[in-house]
Amino acid sequence: MNPNLNMTKIDDAAARLRKRVNVTPVMNSPILDEILGVKLLVKAECLQKTGSFKFRGALNKMLQMTDEQRRRGVVVYSAGNHGHGIAAAARLTGGSAVIIIPDNAPTTKVASCAWWGAEIVRYDHRTESREEIADRIAGERGMTIVSPFDDYDIIAGQATAGLEFGHQLVEADVRPDIAIVPCSGGGLSAGAISALRSAFPGLEAYVVEPEGLDKMALSLREGRPMAQPMKRSTIIDGLNGPMAGSRPVEILLGLGAGGLSVSDEQAAAAAVLIFSHLKLVVEPAGATGVAALISNPERFRGRTVAVIASGGNTDCLPYAAMLADARP
Amino acid sequence: MNPNLNMTKIDDAAARLRKRVNVTPVMNSPILDEILGVKLLVKAECLQKTGSFKFRGALNKMLQMTDEQRRRGVVVYSAGNHGHGIAAAARLTGGSAVIIIPDNAPTTKVASCAWWGAEIVRYDHRTESREEIADRIAGERGMTIVSPFDDYDIIAGQATAGLEFGHQLVEADVRPDIAIVPCSGGGLSAGAISALRSAFPGLEAYVVEPEGLDKMALSLREGRPMAQPMKRSTIIDGLNGPMAGSRPVEILLGLGAGGLSVSDEQAAAAAVLIFSHLKLVVEPAGATGVAALISNPERFRGRTVAVIASGGNTDCLPYAAMLADARP
Repeated sequence: MNPNLNMTKIDDAAARLRKRVNVTPVMNSPILDEILGVKLLVKAECLQKTGSFKFRGALNKMLQMTDEQRRRGVVVYSAGNHGHGIAAAARLTGGSAVIIIPDNAPTTKVASCAWWGAEIVRYDHRTESREEIADRIAGERGMTIVSPFDDYDIIAGQATAGLEFGHQLVEADVRPDIAIVPCSGGGLSAGAISALRSAFPGLEAYVVEPEGLDKMALSLREGRPMAQPMKRSTIIDGLNGPMAGSRPVEILLGLGAGGLSVSDEQAAAAAVLIFSHLKLVVEPAGATGVAALISNPERFRGRTVAVIASGGNTDCLPYAAMLADARP
Repeated sequence: MNPNLNMTKIDDAAARLRKRVNVTPVMNSPILDEILGVKLLVKAECLQKTGSFKFRGALNKMLQMTDEQRRRGVVVYSAGNHGHGIAAAARLTGGSAVIIIPDNAPTTKVASCAWWGAEIVRYDHRTESREEIADRIAGERGMTIVSPFDDYDIIAGQATAGLEFGHQLVEADVRPDIAIVPCSGGGLSAGAISALRSAFPGLEAYVVEPEGLDKMALSLREGRPMAQPMKRSTIIDGLNGPMAGSRPVEILLGLGAGGLSVSDEQAAAAAVLIFSHLKLVVEPAGATGVAALISNPERFRGRTVAVIASGGNTDCLPYAAMLADARP
C-alpha cells in the first residue's frame, strides 16, 4: 500500500471523524438489481453532512491544523461540494474559510457555503484561474490553501467512506467483485478504493468520469497526472475539474484502478433510477457509479458491484427536468 | 401501556425483523432547523425496503402465520405502500398475495407490487368498496385478509420504527420534546408513538393528517373510531384512507396523542425542503410530519421534534412538478 496513505492513516482519520460525520447507509434494491443485471450496493454519501463525502476530508484536514492556522483560515477552490465541506468544517472547528466558486456552480451549493459563514469569491470559469485567485488571497491574508484532492489528509478523510463501506459490506456478509467510484481530482477514488481493497484484496476497482473529461483515465494510461481543458459544459458539474491530482494518480496507479466514463444522459438516467428505487437524491456526479453500469451493460453482468453515490447537492429545477425527461 | 401492544410485543417484533428490515437512518440539517425554527430529527423510513415503513408490519404479520396460511395467501387493500410491503413480505416468506389497489394509486406503487409477484386487482375508488372486494376474494380462495392498520401484529411491526428511532436518539444523546407521525388508519402512529413514549415518558405526541381528511383527529376528539368520506382528491394519496382503525384509536387515546393537519401545499413544500436539505425522496404523505411544522410555525418553535418520514414511493412526474413549483 502507498506509504503516504496506509491503513494507519485511514484508521486514524476514522477515529478523528467518529461521531462527527454521519455513518451513511448502504442501500440496495432487488428491482434495481434486475434492471441493471448486477447485485448493486450503493454507499449513500449524499446523506453525509453537507450533502457529500467532501465533509470527511475537510474535517480530517482542519482537525489537524493548529489553532492559529484555523483562525487565519483556509482558502479553497471548489465546484461546490469541497467548498461546502470546508465551510462546515471551518465553522465546526472554530476556523474561517474563503471559498472560490465558479460562476456556473449550482445555487444550492453556493448558498450552503455562505450559510456556514464562509466568505464566497465567484470567478468566471472560462477566463480566470482558480489557482491564481487562491494563491493571491492566501498570500495577502496568511491563509492556508487546501487542495480539494491533492493532499494526503484530505484523501485519508475521503478514504473513511470506503473504510466504513467495507465494514458495512462485511457486516452484511456481502463480498463485492467490483468497486466504482466517481472521480474528478481523485481524492475520493484514491482514498476509498485503498480502503476497500484492504478489506477485499481481489476487488477490481474503477474510477468513473464524464465522457470527454476523463483526465484520470488518461493519467492512468499515461502513468502521470494529466490535465484536460474543460472543453464542454456538462450536467456532471461535480466532476468538472481540470486536473487529476498527482497524489491520487500515484495511489490509483499503485492500486491498478481502471477508468470508465459516462455521458450526461447516462448520469441523468442513473439519477432517476436512484430516485425511483433507492429514494435518494443524488446529483449527476453522484449517480455516475450507477451510470457506469448503464454505459457498460454487459461488462459487469452478474457481478456484485459496490458504488459510492458521492453527493446530492443539486437545485430543484435541473433535478425536476431530469425526472420529467426520464423515459420510464 | 395498552395490553395489546406492550413493549414485549414490540421487542418481539423487533427481534423477528432483525436483519430482515433496514435500520433506517435519522437525518438532520442545521440549515433546515433554522428554516423551521426547531431542532428536527427525521427518521427516514422512505429508505426502508419497499420504500416505506409498511414492510415492517407486513413482515411481522406474515412471519407469524402458519405455512398453510402463507401458502393460501393474504388479501390486502392498500393505497399502495401496504400492498407493496405485503407483496415483498409474501415473496420473502414463501407466501402469496392479492393486492387490491385503487385506480388513482401512483404507477410506481402498482408496478412494485406486481414486481414482487403479487396478483393485482384494481378498483374504482369512487364507486367500489375495497372491503367488499377483499371479503369476496378471501372467501372464494381461503385467503387471509390483512388489515393495513387494524391488527396488533401489523401495529407491533410498525412500532419497531419508533423503537429503533428511540434507540438512535438515545445513542445520539438527543431527547425529543415532540413526536409527529403521519396517520391514515393509524397503524404507524399508534405503534411508533407507543415505542417512543416508552423511551421518552414526557414526550408530546401528534398524528398528522391531510386537511379535510383528519379522521383520526376527529376520532380522538370523539373518543371512538370515526370514518370520513374521501370527499376530495389530494396529493397526499398515502394518507387517503376512509377510516381510522379501532385498535389504533384505542391505543392513541391511551397515549393522549393530539391531531395536526396539513394542506397539499404544505406537504409539497415540506417534500421540497427534505429534498434540498436531507437529500431524501419522500412522497407527500411522508413529508406531512415536516409539513406540520410549516402549518404550525409558532407552536413548536425552539423544541426538539422527532418526525417519521414514512415513505418515498412517488412517480417522477408529480415529484418533478412539486420541485418545479417550489418557491425558493
